[in-house]
Amino acid sequence: MAKGKNVEQITDMDVDFAQWFTDIVTKAGLIDYSGVKGFFILRPYAYALWENIQTVLDARFKELGHENVSMPLLIPESLLQKEKDHVEGFAPEVGWVTHGGSEELAERLCIRPTSETLFCDHWSNVVSSWRDLPMLYNQWCSVLRWEKTTRPFLRHREFLWQEGHTLHETAEEAELETQQMLNVYAELCEEYLAMPVVKGRKTDKEKFAGAEATYTVECMMHDKKALQSGTSHYFGDGFARAFDIQFSDRENKLSYPHQTSWGLSTRMIGGIIMTHGDNNGLNLPPRIAPVQVIVIPIAAHKPGVLDKASELVSRLKQAGVRVKSDTSDQSPGWKFAEHEMKGVPLRIEIGPKDIENDQCMAVLRYSGEKISVPLSALEEQTKQLLEQIQKSLFERAKEYLTSNTHSAETLDDVKTILNERGGFVKTMWCGNLECEMKMKDEAGVTSRCIPFEQERVGAVCPICKEPSDTMVVWGVAY
Amino acid sequence: MAKGKNVEQITDMDVDFAQWFTDIVTKAGLIDYSGVKGFFILRPYAYALWENIQTVLDARFKELGHENVSMPLLIPESLLQKEKDHVEGFAPEVGWVTHGGSEELAERLCIRPTSETLFCDHWSNVVSSWRDLPMLYNQWCSVLRWEKTTRPFLRHREFLWQEGHTLHETAEEAELETQQMLNVYAELCEEYLAMPVVKGRKTDKEKFAGAEATYTVECMMHDKKALQSGTSHYFGDGFARAFDIQFSDRENKLSYPHQTSWGLSTRMIGGIIMTHGDNNGLNLPPRIAPVQVIVIPIAAHKPGVLDKASELVSRLKQAGVRVKSDTSDQSPGWKFAEHEMKGVPLRIEIGPKDIENDQCMAVLRYSGEKISVPLSALEEQTKQLLEQIQKSLFERAKEYLTSNTHSAETLDDVKTILNERGGFVKTMWCGNLECEMKMKDEAGVTSRCIPFEQERVGAVCPICKEPSDTMVVWGVAY
Repeated sequence: MAKGKNVEQITDMDVDFAQWFTDIVTKAGLIDYSGVKGFFILRPYAYALWENIQTVLDARFKELGHENVSMPLLIPESLLQKEKDHVEGFAPEVGWVTHGGSEELAERLCIRPTSETLFCDHWSNVVSSWRDLPMLYNQWCSVLRWEKTTRPFLRHREFLWQEGHTLHETAEEAELETQQMLNVYAELCEEYLAMPVVKGRKTDKEKFAGAEATYTVECMMHDKKALQSGTSHYFGDGFARAFDIQFSDRENKLSYPHQTSWGLSTRMIGGIIMTHGDNNGLNLPPRIAPVQVIVIPIAAHKPGVLDKASELVSRLKQAGVRVKSDTSDQSPGWKFAEHEMKGVPLRIEIGPKDIENDQCMAVLRYSGEKISVPLSALEEQTKQLLEQIQKSLFERAKEYLTSNTHSAETLDDVKTILNERGGFVKTMWCGNLECEMKMKDEAGVTSRCIPFEQERVGAVCPICKEPSDTMVVWGVAY
Repeated sequence: MAKGKNVEQITDMDVDFAQWFTDIVTKAGLIDYSGVKGFFILRPYAYALWENIQTVLDARFKELGHENVSMPLLIPESLLQKEKDHVEGFAPEVGWVTHGGSEELAERLCIRPTSETLFCDHWSNVVSSWRDLPMLYNQWCSVLRWEKTTRPFLRHREFLWQEGHTLHETAEEAELETQQMLNVYAELCEEYLAMPVVKGRKTDKEKFAGAEATYTVECMMHDKKALQSGTSHYFGDGFARAFDIQFSDRENKLSYPHQTSWGLSTRMIGGIIMTHGDNNGLNLPPRIAPVQVIVIPIAAHKPGVLDKASELVSRLKQAGVRVKSDTSDQSPGWKFAEHEMKGVPLRIEIGPKDIENDQCMAVLRYSGEKISVPLSALEEQTKQLLEQIQKSLFERAKEYLTSNTHSAETLDDVKTILNERGGFVKTMWCGNLECEMKMKDEAGVTSRCIPFEQERVGAVCPICKEPSDTMVVWGVAY
């Protein structure tokens, strides 16, 4: 294991996971704290991760026919209040603008916590016929939620996200859209972020304010807690009625359209850290890493070393690899530690001996494995190694999720599992809020979702003992 | 000229230019008004234009070594006040957040009107050595300025922009950066937006609040008014001193770094409209157009027409052209008008006769010219036509700028030119604020810039008659 200034300063993840997380976000140069609680600065390395997530999602959204738009930052209080459940869910945690320049505003404006009300207001202006549907919109922006407790990436008062909003002729079409976009999130998580997901539906208690149904992808972090990673909501025609959006349908009758929204945020960066990171720092899946390969010259003062390092960088760049070299005046050991902290998936070392032997040394961040690579096969083997790392990170996380997900038939079993091992617990559930609340009070877990892949892990609800056909996954959530 | 519902509804640009502009932004589907004055919705077609501008600039910024970051939306009042000139310039026009949820904040927070103070606050945390420099940062975001009078694209209370912020070891390096980024803006305007620029330095009266020098690219609109299109500021070490940013330099002495910022906003979309638009609507330069070619089937019910139209679309898409077809049930005339309104640079008509003759008809939006294109040369000739349109739009705008820029030696001449012809007026200037103010009071124009390309258009300042070596361009500005 490489040693350097950064490694010495980081808290052991198994001693204090929360502090380990905080250490990483600052030491890896992801976050700086601003002067306002809960407002964080995303430094270039964090923002580059977000840009890579954006690139994947934005392309996928557009392939599926969505268009980007920009809605206002501010929502008049009266507009926020139009949908009853929605305002109840969000009004307690918004920031209020009361003055413009030196003048007090006639009506106070809230900074968007989410933009359903704005999209609905716009649609009520522009939708009149079935020919105008579907509306398939998305926006990349920041939203504000005035949280009491805040943490980098996981709970910001301001966070970056995308929010998709769509409007459809029929309920069926809207339901399909909701599912489709959930699958896009699952694909991003599993194929790019190497984070296996549990896909399912939220219980009524946990669903989005104003939604008929909320679907979610839930991931398991290293501390076995759950991270809700992307949600997709089906609204029925509730908002359309509240905002009086009507269209003449194919039979020329006035109808209310059906609506969805779906969002994913920079909290995923927290998820990447807590899924793959270790006591040496970040550990990035190659497909999403801002730098996939770091080239480090060994004995850089020896003739030919720097030239050769720069040749390797050119070749890899040419081959489409995101590659950099570290030619600073620090020691190789310091550099190893630095780029391990930054989670660069692959390190390539090149020194005089390597040059003599027409090879370089590839070191895998996630396993520490060292592989000698003939320079003639540099591009090919680098790409293979990156794919292998991507796959291995996913498999390791999948194995972690599986082995830390347990089944239980009684409340006592649930408590024992959580006390002794932690993780997710699957039980049957009768569907009643009372039992869901009791599970929280007694076992300290919330329902993460009703998984699409149902199993029969018992016959009755562990709380009320009524016969139950529905399986729920419970966990402690971020 | 094609006729249709949209064309009949648009105001003649030479009768009422402001109303013409408003008609276009709504009829071409660019803008919708929100419930809050000065907050506009950028609909997909407008946002796609912005995305195309982003793609060009973002790639260029990164090539030049800049990295994207995300700074907070909110600035504590005390932070905004740290630089005296800056707060005087911006405090009167910011939105103030006073409540989070139901609680009144201890210190009110303003929504960023620009982010110099935030970048400086961050840099004061992270910069300590010359090794940390330069900091070459950019962010894409929205900012708020509580303007009294608002207009789509030209004066929003909230607008999208990019703001670059950089920090350098030396004044020389910072000055070079300021110039370099101005050139990036000039390049965007001229080569992509087909908008010729006058490059120069702002007078002290017109420079950015807190800057030592502001550089600008100014464009001329169809009504001969000026649009300030991108600005680049040199701050010296003023902010660094106010925010106590110091670094140990190469001689190991504590020094203040030198700073720049530069921004360009969605107002450029207003510039594109007012430079190239006409009484049929928008008129987009191909390099920035969301749709470069619209394929319209003629007698679409005849066998083979729709198939052939779709074949042309596939071929052009394959060749890298942004192309769509309009297969709706509207008449060809309606479609012609619709896509002229949307400013699609090239229309391709394909009907039974064309198919028989192995050709299609290409119609140039900007000139109305019709050209028969053999299908065998479709890709090649389409690309040539798009390049030709791009070039012609620039040349036409350049000729307009040149022929509407006049020289004058006396105040009376300035007034006569502005009354009779309008446009830009070049005069010498003594450099005194009093004369600049008098020019505004008497002739109604502000100094647009002191062009880098100086000419000797007289010997004395037209106001005070003192000998003068500096030429200024004056105009009425948006």
